[in-house]
Amino acid sequence: MSTQYFMPTQVFAGKNCLIENAAEFAKLGSKALIVTGAHSAKACGALEDVTAALSRIGCTYTIYNQVPQNPTISCVFSGVEKAREISADYIIAIGGGSPMDAGKAIALLAKNPQLTAETLFSGSYPGGALPIAAVPTTAGTGSEVTKASILTNDAAQTKSSIANPLIFPQIAFLDGRYTEKLPLVTTVNTAIDALTHAAEGMLSCKAGMMTDCLAKEALGRIAACFPAMQSGDISPMQRSSLLAASTLAGIVIANTGTTAVHAMGYSLTYFKHIAHGRANGLIFPAFLKFMYTKVPNRVQDILVDLGCETVEQLTDIFTELLGRPEPLTLPEAEQFASIAIQSGNIKNCLIKPSQADLLNIYKASFSLE
Amino acid sequence: MSTQYFMPTQVFAGKNCLIENAAEFAKLGSKALIVTGAHSAKACGALEDVTAALSRIGCTYTIYNQVPQNPTISCVFSGVEKAREISADYIIAIGGGSPMDAGKAIALLAKNPQLTAETLFSGSYPGGALPIAAVPTTAGTGSEVTKASILTNDAAQTKSSIANPLIFPQIAFLDGRYTEKLPLVTTVNTAIDALTHAAEGMLSCKAGMMTDCLAKEALGRIAACFPAMQSGDISPMQRSSLLAASTLAGIVIANTGTTAVHAMGYSLTYFKHIAHGRANGLIFPAFLKFMYTKVPNRVQDILVDLGCETVEQLTDIFTELLGRPEPLTLPEAEQFASIAIQSGNIKNCLIKPSQADLLNIYKASFSLE
Repeated sequence: MSTQYFMPTQVFAGKNCLIENAAEFAKLGSKALIVTGAHSAKACGALEDVTAALSRIGCTYTIYNQVPQNPTISCVFSGVEKAREISADYIIAIGGGSPMDAGKAIALLAKNPQLTAETLFSGSYPGGALPIAAVPTTAGTGSEVTKASILTNDAAQTKSSIANPLIFPQIAFLDGRYTEKLPLVTTVNTAIDALTHAAEGMLSCKAGMMTDCLAKEALGRIAACFPAMQSGDISPMQRSSLLAASTLAGIVIANTGTTAVHAMGYSLTYFKHIAHGRANGLIFPAFLKFMYTKVPNRVQDILVDLGCETVEQLTDIFTELLGRPEPLTLPEAEQFASIAIQSGNIKNCLIKPSQADLLNIYKASFSLE
Repeated sequence: MSTQYFMPTQVFAGKNCLIENAAEFAKLGSKALIVTGAHSAKACGALEDVTAALSRIGCTYTIYNQVPQNPTISCVFSGVEKAREISADYIIAIGGGSPMDAGKAIALLAKNPQLTAETLFSGSYPGGALPIAAVPTTAGTGSEVTKASILTNDAAQTKSSIANPLIFPQIAFLDGRYTEKLPLVTTVNTAIDALTHAAEGMLSCKAGMMTDCLAKEALGRIAACFPAMQSGDISPMQRSSLLAASTLAGIVIANTGTTAVHAMGYSLTYFKHIAHGRANGLIFPAFLKFMYTKVPNRVQDILVDLGCETVEQLTDIFTELLGRPEPLTLPEAEQFASIAIQSGNIKNCLIKPSQADLLNIYKASFSLE
């Protein structure tokens, strides 16, 4: 079977890359809607850099800073209203995954006014999308280089994805400085998210030579930061490397999709309010152990890239980084397995787990009987 | 300083990828001009696959098979006439570097009728370009994923480049089977070309984390095939890996440009008719030795990726693969150094060599006094 690779985002990386390349914004239009969360874009310095860059090139902008963690469909529709009000030419999304996910959906809805909360995930977007510039302020989601927008979907009681090439950002700016003030717990959770992207990409039936190459680099970079994350002392160079890893892993999943780990993690976030990266990290070791019984060589490759000899050794590192898992009941695990098995992500698995396999992975991850 | 990365071509890879994804051609239009050399596209099976794919989806096509090795400006203008005659919607370039280089220039000229042989390299292409599909049949140039078209420029007595994002192919199909019948000498020369792309990319001032990651993978894949190239017994899997390496290295130079090796090689091809990859390979060891005196750690990284401990060890491998160099006189070397120093590629070097440095590299490469 043939493989595909596509990632059309122009990526600028390095200290001050946003200010140095301010002129890039002008190529997207003259009026920007800046989409952020309430605080972090400001606190990390990214918002100030963006507004300084826009002022320098004479672009006007309005800020929509109402994106919550795990963005909802309603916050996206509020953002679209704002975009229409100012006739925005393009979107600048600054933040972790949430503002980037919201910004992408806003870009799509702004050009497709016929869409409703019901048809948003339909895959039919004849109007196209506004261009998007993405400025990540965490090193985890890789959303700056993906065609996915992941929203909390109360109707489906899980997270749902829009996945369409229209919402690949036109440009992304990676400056590790924006991640330097992140609390350790966020740093760890987001790094683990990126790690699962790279590893799930290698365990996807859509993996190819490009995605493998990028995934291995991402795993190596993240593993090199395990000791720093364990000690809590993370240097600026390590911050930049984690951000690079998260973008590399984002390019991977833009092509391979995510697999069972993400499918299983969504319920942990939706029902148990466990942060996305942490949710994935709690599931990952048991999933890897399951995959080891199916494709041992492939799992061995991942372990080597992570500097580990066995799944157990990696499990110990994850336990040290993430601590004890939240309590979970058997009925919860059964419900989550029944939701996860219906997820599109399961189809991406190199070996498709059954619902019983998923339940066993939940049981192993949360020490259920 | 910040780095940039951009590569918008959609890449399909694997056995039969072209036939499996025939529908992709329909996205580019309904009338194709197929650009090839006189023989190889037919001999390797790629032309048959392309015409079968087009017939299957009901696209019409005309074949322009007059592209010579080291394509000239006049062959490009002949191709444009053909494209206009049939009102081609898009170009399918099948071949080694030459048909891809020519196809890209034809795509540009077809939409910019004001261009002449004098203004072709001007950088101003307001009309855009026809979409391009690329099907490489050698594993060397990486042209299927670059924005460059390199043409023989008799007025400038060298090769000249058009470098513009407009001529990134929309799609590329990598099927190692098309390279299986290549003679050993072509296989070696093109593999060495790809190797220099990756290594020059790592020695470019535009290198970044993405290009380094891809370059290292490319170098590792090519080095893994040194013994097969030395014995002349190259397996289908090794053919596919060399093709992957050449595409990876192409993505590298799409972002870093090539450096002094290519600048110096062009005269060897233009005046001495030495094949492009061989020309680069004859220059490369002495260039690497020069760079070792300037940036030893960076050169050491390249040597490690190539499985060598010293430049001398790599030089021995190159000598075994390429044999003795052609005779070159001191006045020729002096002339070539004076041409190469004016090349734009020199500006890409991490450390810019002087004209005297270039002369010394020619002297060392060709055993001149």
